[in-house]
Amino acid sequence: MPTSSIENKTGHGNRFDRPEGRQIEVGILGATGMVGQQMLARLERHRWFRATWLAASVRSAGRRYGDLPWRLSSPTPEKAISLTVETIKPGSGPQLIFSGLDSSVAGEVETEFAAAGHVVVSNSRNHRMDPLVPLLISEVNPSHLGLLPFQQQRKRWSGAIVTNPNCSTVFLAMALAALRQFDPRRLLVTTLQALSGAGYPGVASLDATANVIPYIEGEEEKIETESRKILGRFENGAIQPYAADISATATRVPVIDGHMETVSVELGKQASHEEIIHAFRSFSGEAQELGLPSAPPQPIEYHESPNRPQPRLDAEWGDGMVVHVGRLRPCPVLSYKFVLLGHNTIRGAAGAAVLNAELLTAAGLID
Amino acid sequence: MPTSSIENKTGHGNRFDRPEGRQIEVGILGATGMVGQQMLARLERHRWFRATWLAASVRSAGRRYGDLPWRLSSPTPEKAISLTVETIKPGSGPQLIFSGLDSSVAGEVETEFAAAGHVVVSNSRNHRMDPLVPLLISEVNPSHLGLLPFQQQRKRWSGAIVTNPNCSTVFLAMALAALRQFDPRRLLVTTLQALSGAGYPGVASLDATANVIPYIEGEEEKIETESRKILGRFENGAIQPYAADISATATRVPVIDGHMETVSVELGKQASHEEIIHAFRSFSGEAQELGLPSAPPQPIEYHESPNRPQPRLDAEWGDGMVVHVGRLRPCPVLSYKFVLLGHNTIRGAAGAAVLNAELLTAAGLID
Amino acid sequence: MPTSSIENKTGHGNRFDRPEGRQIEVGILGATGMVGQQMLARLERHRWFRATWLAASVRSAGRRYGDLPWRLSSPTPEKAISLTVETIKPGSGPQLIFSGLDSSVAGEVETEFAAAGHVVVSNSRNHRMDPLVPLLISEVNPSHLGLLPFQQQRKRWSGAIVTNPNCSTVFLAMALAALRQFDPRRLLVTTLQALSGAGYPGVASLDATANVIPYIEGEEEKIETESRKILGRFENGAIQPYAADISATATRVPVIDGHMETVSVELGKQASHEEIIHAFRSFSGEAQELGLPSAPPQPIEYHESPNRPQPRLDAEWGDGMVVHVGRLRPCPVLSYKFVLLGHNTIRGAAGAAVLNAELLTAAGLID
Amino acid sequence: MPTSSIENKTGHGNRFDRPEGRQIEVGILGATGMVGQQMLARLERHRWFRATWLAASVRSAGRRYGDLPWRLSSPTPEKAISLTVETIKPGSGPQLIFSGLDSSVAGEVETEFAAAGHVVVSNSRNHRMDPLVPLLISEVNPSHLGLLPFQQQRKRWSGAIVTNPNCSTVFLAMALAALRQFDPRRLLVTTLQALSGAGYPGVASLDATANVIPYIEGEEEKIETESRKILGRFENGAIQPYAADISATATRVPVIDGHMETVSVELGKQASHEEIIHAFRSFSGEAQELGLPSAPPQPIEYHESPNRPQPRLDAEWGDGMVVHVGRLRPCPVLSYKFVLLGHNTIRGAAGAAVLNAELLTAAGLID
Repeated sequence: MPTSSIENKTGHGNRFDRPEGRQIEVGILGATGMVGQQMLARLERHRWFRATWLAASVRSAGRRYGDLPWRLSSPTPEKAISLTVETIKPGSGPQLIFSGLDSSVAGEVETEFAAAGHVVVSNSRNHRMDPLVPLLISEVNPSHLGLLPFQQQRKRWSGAIVTNPNCSTVFLAMALAALRQFDPRRLLVTTLQALSGAGYPGVASLDATANVIPYIEGEEEKIETESRKILGRFENGAIQPYAADISATATRVPVIDGHMETVSVELGKQASHEEIIHAFRSFSGEAQELGLPSAPPQPIEYHESPNRPQPRLDAEWGDGMVVHVGRLRPCPVLSYKFVLLGHNTIRGAAGAAVLNAELLTAAGLID
Repeated sequence: MPTSSIENKTGHGNRFDRPEGRQIEVGILGATGMVGQQMLARLERHRWFRATWLAASVRSAGRRYGDLPWRLSSPTPEKAISLTVETIKPGSGPQLIFSGLDSSVAGEVETEFAAAGHVVVSNSRNHRMDPLVPLLISEVNPSHLGLLPFQQQRKRWSGAIVTNPNCSTVFLAMALAALRQFDPRRLLVTTLQALSGAGYPGVASLDATANVIPYIEGEEEKIETESRKILGRFENGAIQPYAADISATATRVPVIDGHMETVSVELGKQASHEEIIHAFRSFSGEAQELGLPSAPPQPIEYHESPNRPQPRLDAEWGDGMVVHVGRLRPCPVLSYKFVLLGHNTIRGAAGAAVLNAELLTAAGLID
Repeated sequence: MPTSSIENKTGHGNRFDRPEGRQIEVGILGATGMVGQQMLARLERHRWFRATWLAASVRSAGRRYGDLPWRLSSPTPEKAISLTVETIKPGSGPQLIFSGLDSSVAGEVETEFAAAGHVVVSNSRNHRMDPLVPLLISEVNPSHLGLLPFQQQRKRWSGAIVTNPNCSTVFLAMALAALRQFDPRRLLVTTLQALSGAGYPGVASLDATANVIPYIEGEEEKIETESRKILGRFENGAIQPYAADISATATRVPVIDGHMETVSVELGKQASHEEIIHAFRSFSGEAQELGLPSAPPQPIEYHESPNRPQPRLDAEWGDGMVVHVGRLRPCPVLSYKFVLLGHNTIRGAAGAAVLNAELLTAAGLID
Repeated sequence: MPTSSIENKTGHGNRFDRPEGRQIEVGILGATGMVGQQMLARLERHRWFRATWLAASVRSAGRRYGDLPWRLSSPTPEKAISLTVETIKPGSGPQLIFSGLDSSVAGEVETEFAAAGHVVVSNSRNHRMDPLVPLLISEVNPSHLGLLPFQQQRKRWSGAIVTNPNCSTVFLAMALAALRQFDPRRLLVTTLQALSGAGYPGVASLDATANVIPYIEGEEEKIETESRKILGRFENGAIQPYAADISATATRVPVIDGHMETVSVELGKQASHEEIIHAFRSFSGEAQELGLPSAPPQPIEYHESPNRPQPRLDAEWGDGMVVHVGRLRPCPVLSYKFVLLGHNTIRGAAGAAVLNAELLTAAGLID
């Protein structure tokens, strides 16, 4: 992996035109899990990438991918059906590796792959808070890729690890990034999270049907700590976390896809209703400037209708990559409150990883 | 109605023993609606009250009650089946009248019944914020019944109107009452409300299935304003609202019965985790002291299990009259946060009204 | 409308290549309802048709289409947003008119449009059983278009009406058509129908959540009678209904899209398990031969997995136009039993109508 | 266990009055599973029985019952909270043992308990089709208890095993028993089964939400074979199965409790609509004659309303022990069709077992 930073390659705000021709081969670790399947689905018609190497645990290794259970509401991708599932062996497979591994194994495996020269784009939580690992949202903190040379040097890896945040955190961090100009200082968020966020088999149907579970293990801590890292500043080879108080309550609701969040925020700078809506609607980042294939032209959609956004009606917009905001109004306790929605397995997981890999490619970090 | 205040009758903290014998006849306005049916169901085996007069709009008036649609998951109450539905005519029917009328008509009708000498115990929102009408939770603010002599005098009613709060407000106000000793000053609440709260037909199934609707018309204002009135002090014939900043976000989730609320609160006085849990568990009021038939021995249940309370598992406890609290933990922005649950059509509506009528009876306000 | 029959135009089994260039303008009656919105959504990127005229009741007429509620899980179609909703006035609008009108008004309005020269492709039930109106599934009974000259002559219409069947009937009739070679004689079917089949607001969420409603008004009769007409033979200007005993039970289940059906059938001719599966998989019709834009290459998908098809995983396949069969096995009472699934608002309604209009176009019946 | 047959004890149609006083101690095998918890819940306020011995797998053995997860929508039964969970050891525990064991272990364990002298009343499927084991519905086939002396003799058990049928079978067999006078010969049934039938964790929420699964392993065979055994005749120490063709299709729907079934039946004897409804409504059996504590006065409720019964509204009637029938109408293929509903974990499992134990007690088979 070339260690050139993204600034060198992409700093001019120009669109990145990958030369037509050969697609980049990519692999997927955990290709039979829910996140792995979502990654594969998103790569099926990708302009740049082609999934040619699918690895999973020994239980599935050696079997024809098309013979294994497929859990998405679309047929198994044509190109994957006849692939044989590989064992998880560092050094085998392409340079660019997506990881949808379960956190019980992801930590060690991803380290081994990075050490063996792979660029691992991971959705797992294990390395997210490692000070040397970028916790990357392409629209928000591309400068954090500046960590990679330090990561390679200190960890003595020939490859690298880049992670995307927890699903609920992605949407919140994007909304906060849009509001950063108004100096958000304190924030309370309650999430109403979809069932697909718990993977498969995940939540038992007797717990999920016509019910709310007011607890998701570890989720509140992730939202509170990951958000501060993402919004932090890259300086002298390290991330200075963003200084804000964040308080999260995470609940599970009987929704299939789409995490809703209710947010109240205190702003250090005064801002009018119109200024805030404008900030959401005009929010844009490196991903849009470069015209990355998975980047939605407008990352945040603000809804005027008082009963929107809704998971079932809105989560799929823009191929699931758009974050939705609605109901902006003054908060009697803090400054403003609003609701937030995003597609948890796409913008919050598989699509986030693919977009990150596109940014790495545009930055010249993939050969 | 005797104008004696509740203090005179019940001030000694003694249990109230209604003499065995004749039950008090009661009527129900809006007896064919969802709230009216819940009221009727709760009166079916009531020790003190017997529903003998069921009134509804002209569409149903004159029909046999047992021939009309019954929407609860229990057979139509035996005693009601053969009753003929009455027209809504002030002056007819018993002294004690429950009102489950829709707010489009409740305002005027309830006024007329009060003027005609009835004691109207209403679940409708119309008169709740009238400065002369008690917004009553029997455990929280029985002293507000002191408004009644002023109400009768200024409005020149021979009867009276007493209201119970909005469903979400009941649970929140009870939790706040338990915490009042620690001086709650600022509070943020997000509600996850059940479908039954919208009545019948209410929310369309295409909006409710596997979805969240982040808006319930008027609900947030009710929570914010009603809570302050309930916790207010009765002084010199008026209620001084409680001075706290309350910010509510109301959402609708695909749950049948049971509103969940996530709450963050700032306390003026320091309190330990144990002190707060003790405050919840030991919370009790006039309703318990008097031993009213619908009063749960312990009004607030605190759950130790991290994933409780849950609507489907907990809302029915204690005949639906118990309010549930769980997940107490420090809030990084305010002081503490916790989750709250109550049965919206029972503790939050029909059961609240019946309990209020019991308090009025114990206070000697029903002949 | 030219009265040439479809045989003359398309009888050679050749693909129909509509010349590139000008799209055919089409109108939609009932464009603001659920079926009308589905029709509009399916026309958005249609190769042949362009929706330029949207009509609805006086309540919506005169308003900008983009300002009206849109209930599908995709944004309002771009091209429709700025259209003004028209009043329902026969003679105005293009020749080809889709009707998604409610059956309370569809009968008369469609007659008036046909009399005024429009070719009305209707999803409403009103004219389905009219002996002179084709009840058309493009794969099953294109010969029924032979009714049109008789329809025009006897009704003295310069236009025409063509209808598609009830949603549950479409899937059953396609399965029966595939089995016709084995002489199906007696058939029992139980449907498990999705909520979207009842339109909006349709079923109340309190009836739909975690519940089954064992009754859908008029549905069982439609399934029993429409199926026989569709499979009937066109002879001497009339349809001779197919002689089979059909018994239907219709239930509503809490599914968003996709009607499941369990079917047991008695066959007059012996057939092996393999022959029947082959019959399903190889089933094809005029729509496929002509290569109509909405025709799925393989109209019936047979699933080997014992727990498929499922509404949530399979209904969207092939853009919602594929009918799914699974679990073929001997029936201890009749001959065979199997399960059946189709997308009720697409293959069972809007998509069926669009496909029928494509067939009319290929048959030269649209100028 | 006395080997006296039930006829000797109860043949006179007299009510059985168990002398007041000492309750019979009972044990539960599998007391921490879903069925075991339902059994325990039903025994909490039982007039005759008291659960004093709760056994479960080694994972739970030795722990306080109140510390283990409780999954019903009511608090853990008071009397059970302080009991220590026992290991599953034949010979220990009371004579009367309920078994809610998983079928993976039930077969062997129940045999060992019967050999050790216990009367095992089992809900598991393992011994149901054993020719020497009664498959008992107290209202339908009490004469099958005549198998017990043969069972004891041939198996050399000092105890015994009595089983209740699969949940879907209970409701169907009761309906068939009511119709037996009209000679039911051929029958098709489609079940729409609730999630609780699959136990906990059971069906994954991603499979259950807004979906139908058209397959439940082994269920269709159970319905077809168990029904014939239950309706069979006890002759010369053996059951002669009832000769009817039964064809079942089993599906899973997103309902919490309550299995719906759609049934078409061919009758050998002519019967009018009124005669059939009368047969359902007047159906009664030994359980009613004896006045057993769990026996509903009228076991089958026929609903006139066209959209009833419904799981959410009707399954809980009569403490969950009533079976519901509705929508009787002629079947164009067989003779009649109707819909059927019962509470699967109560009338179809735990309640069925408790009622069977009551019958054994009344028959003098429990000391």
